[in-house]
Amino acid sequence: MATQAEADAMRRAIALAARALGSTSPNPVVGCVLLDARGRTAGEGWHRRAGGPHAEVAALRDAADAGHDVRGGTAVVTLEPCNHTGRTGPCAQALLAAGVARVVYAVADPNPTATGGAATLAAAGVDTEGGLLADEAAAGNAAWLTSVLRDRPFVLWKYAATLDGRSAAADGTSRWITSAASRADVHRLRAEADAVVVGSGTLRADDPHLAVRGLDGVTQPLRVVVDTHATIKPGARVLDDAAPTLIAVGEDADTRHLPGTDTVRLPYGEQGLDVHALLAELHGRGVRSVLLEGGPSLAGSFVAAGAVDRIVGYLAPALLGAGPTALGDAGITTVAQTLRLAVTDVARLGPDLRITATPTASAPEEN
Amino acid sequence: MATQAEADAMRRAIALAARALGSTSPNPVVGCVLLDARGRTAGEGWHRRAGGPHAEVAALRDAADAGHDVRGGTAVVTLEPCNHTGRTGPCAQALLAAGVARVVYAVADPNPTATGGAATLAAAGVDTEGGLLADEAAAGNAAWLTSVLRDRPFVLWKYAATLDGRSAAADGTSRWITSAASRADVHRLRAEADAVVVGSGTLRADDPHLAVRGLDGVTQPLRVVVDTHATIKPGARVLDDAAPTLIAVGEDADTRHLPGTDTVRLPYGEQGLDVHALLAELHGRGVRSVLLEGGPSLAGSFVAAGAVDRIVGYLAPALLGAGPTALGDAGITTVAQTLRLAVTDVARLGPDLRITATPTASAPEEN
Ligand SMILES: NC(=O)c1ccc[n+]([C@@H]2O[C@H](COP(=O)([O-])OP(=O)(O)OC[C@H]3O[C@@H](n4cnc5c(N)ncnc54)[C@H](OP(=O)(O)O)[C@@H]3O)[C@@H](O)[C@H]2O)c1
Ligand SMILES: NC(=O)c1ccc[n+]([C@@H]2O[C@H](COP(=O)([O-])OP(=O)(O)OC[C@H]3O[C@@H](n4cnc5c(N)ncnc54)[C@H](OP(=O)(O)O)[C@@H]3O)[C@@H](O)[C@H]2O)c1
Repeated sequence: MATQAEADAMRRAIALAARALGSTSPNPVVGCVLLDARGRTAGEGWHRRAGGPHAEVAALRDAADAGHDVRGGTAVVTLEPCNHTGRTGPCAQALLAAGVARVVYAVADPNPTATGGAATLAAAGVDTEGGLLADEAAAGNAAWLTSVLRDRPFVLWKYAATLDGRSAAADGTSRWITSAASRADVHRLRAEADAVVVGSGTLRADDPHLAVRGLDGVTQPLRVVVDTHATIKPGARVLDDAAPTLIAVGEDADTRHLPGTDTVRLPYGEQGLDVHALLAELHGRGVRSVLLEGGPSLAGSFVAAGAVDRIVGYLAPALLGAGPTALGDAGITTVAQTLRLAVTDVARLGPDLRITATPTASAPEEN
Repeated sequence: MATQAEADAMRRAIALAARALGSTSPNPVVGCVLLDARGRTAGEGWHRRAGGPHAEVAALRDAADAGHDVRGGTAVVTLEPCNHTGRTGPCAQALLAAGVARVVYAVADPNPTATGGAATLAAAGVDTEGGLLADEAAAGNAAWLTSVLRDRPFVLWKYAATLDGRSAAADGTSRWITSAASRADVHRLRAEADAVVVGSGTLRADDPHLAVRGLDGVTQPLRVVVDTHATIKPGARVLDDAAPTLIAVGEDADTRHLPGTDTVRLPYGEQGLDVHALLAELHGRGVRSVLLEGGPSLAGSFVAAGAVDRIVGYLAPALLGAGPTALGDAGITTVAQTLRLAVTDVARLGPDLRITATPTASAPEEN
């Protein structure tokens, strides 16, 4: 049984891990708190970026820098310590070398190349315990865990609409349907994502920039435009150097007007470019979480492809009665095919509502 | 200054008043608690239906039945006691006759034919105080107070939709987009309304019944169908005897196939029948609150006419991407004309969200 001090340490470790959301891919976010033999905090650390020290190693260094002794102490870590030698050595070995007597972790590592850390530690005589605050820790790593499970990036579709589901007025105007608070929140979502994706319709309508503004020290996401016929103009804002950009085009697109622009050729799917091919390409580039920013047509294709893992809707308290809808055709023609969701969070952002939901496998209620 | 016992009594009086929501029109709901000279509850009552005793009289009878003496005591009442002799005598006189020394009320009576009760009481030497828990009491009487202010019934528009604003799938199927909990809540809204209104499109699509089911002792609302050309068939469910029904038709409609059915001829407005003429007709019949149940076209006309006072949206956690929208054309063509609302309540009903909002006069945020 974990102690109260260990549970507190785990909560702290989860908070530390969250600091690096959007910066660690293809790795998970991980936080670690070291307790000395008397149960006092001796050091803490988190994984900041791929290639940088893992959370356990960062925490061991923090303890050493402070002159704290962790021998006979406990490592509290949000994810099972790794057992493989990647760009950094295995964490299980580092903890053994430091003389830690006990390791408490939240979530078992689902990554086939990384598991075994707990077994290695246990075999060396370390007291190991998994599952402490596992749900909270898993929620903090939802994108990465989903990407391991699905073998493609986690996809969060974000939309902004009125209460009656319109994302613009009949004449196409949409400034500002949602509030400044909602728009700032979208920048947080971008900062937490590895890639931000829009369709060519949004590109042409809005000339969006898609980089994170107003937040310090963030890793900018890869900006991705799904632009079958490479219609993007060299002066598009998304092509500036604020963040890297990838233009996904059809196999037959003419890209000669885009020298020096990163493009990828994708096969065609049911409507437009193949969504799964796009996600596979991004996955291959280390992208573990995608923020899909629309528009309605591309979002419809993602829903149709079963490639939306979370929905965040910013609902403005407003009615329009006409104008483009937030979600376009998703191949759903009758109510039995409805994509059912479960609402996981409802928040007020200024005057707006932010609704977070995830698709459920459960059948619609029949009564 | 009101005492703690008076504030507690007012809270109780507000709760008593709410019991009769939907049953008192054209009168407001009113609750009254009598405290004896020592501040103990001596009697309580509420106005149950037009023509029945007012709350103060009901409370005086309750005290008399229990043998409690209210001389020198206090009457705590949600609305300023009336001063006019309507179907029952003026309450101010009844309170004076009973020897009450003090009257505490929440909301001043805005009705021109009824005001003056407080002045009459004060002139007779009774200590009077208004404004105690006025906001709570006014919220409980929102429909009636609005109807006095606007000189037309209060209109609550209710809709059910998916998160992307669809009220049915592309093929028209909509059973069940929202949950049993939401559907039960709609029956509560019907019970609290004096009239339930739908358009002929909903009549033809759904053959709705519109009466309250599953709630005991309620006054059934007047069922109203806006049916320009009197297309309703004699066997329509809305024409059964579960509740009264009114069919609003155009001036030129042929209603010979509807002998014995209550119909009213209305002038034409911008699209279909004139909404304000409909509301004036209902007001003349004593209707103080209307539940507008749709469909999208009729709701659009009400929004365009500025005749929606509250919106209750039942949002199902589901996505459709196609199908009819919850709100049809409301004459809004550009985002500057958006009907802005303020969200006053967000509740979870089973899996659904219920969002309550009211139109605001404030300009959209510019930033
Ligand atoms: N409210 C919001 O949250 C929000 C967010 C974003 C955008 N918007 C608005 O949405 C509007 C644009 O939406 P939209 O629906 O016209 O465009 P879109 O969804 O941004 O892009 C659709 C276009 O992308 C290309 N495409 C390539 N592969 C596709 C695939 N698999 N599925 C779908 N499209 C694919 C197609 O054009 P090509 O074949 O020509 O490449 C298609 O027409 C703009 O007015 C924008 O302001 C609103
Ligand atoms: N999700 C929900 O909350 C909800 C609620 C109700 C209905 N619905 C659905 O909505 C659909 C029907 O909607 P709808 O838009 O076709 O019909 P509707 O709004 O119920 O009725 C519109 C019809 O009413 C008549 N009308 C008369 N005066 C009008 C006026 N001033 N403004 C607008 N209409 C007026 C017109 O027909 P005439 O000239 O022929 O009389 C008009 O076509 C059905 O499928 C129903 O299931 C959904």
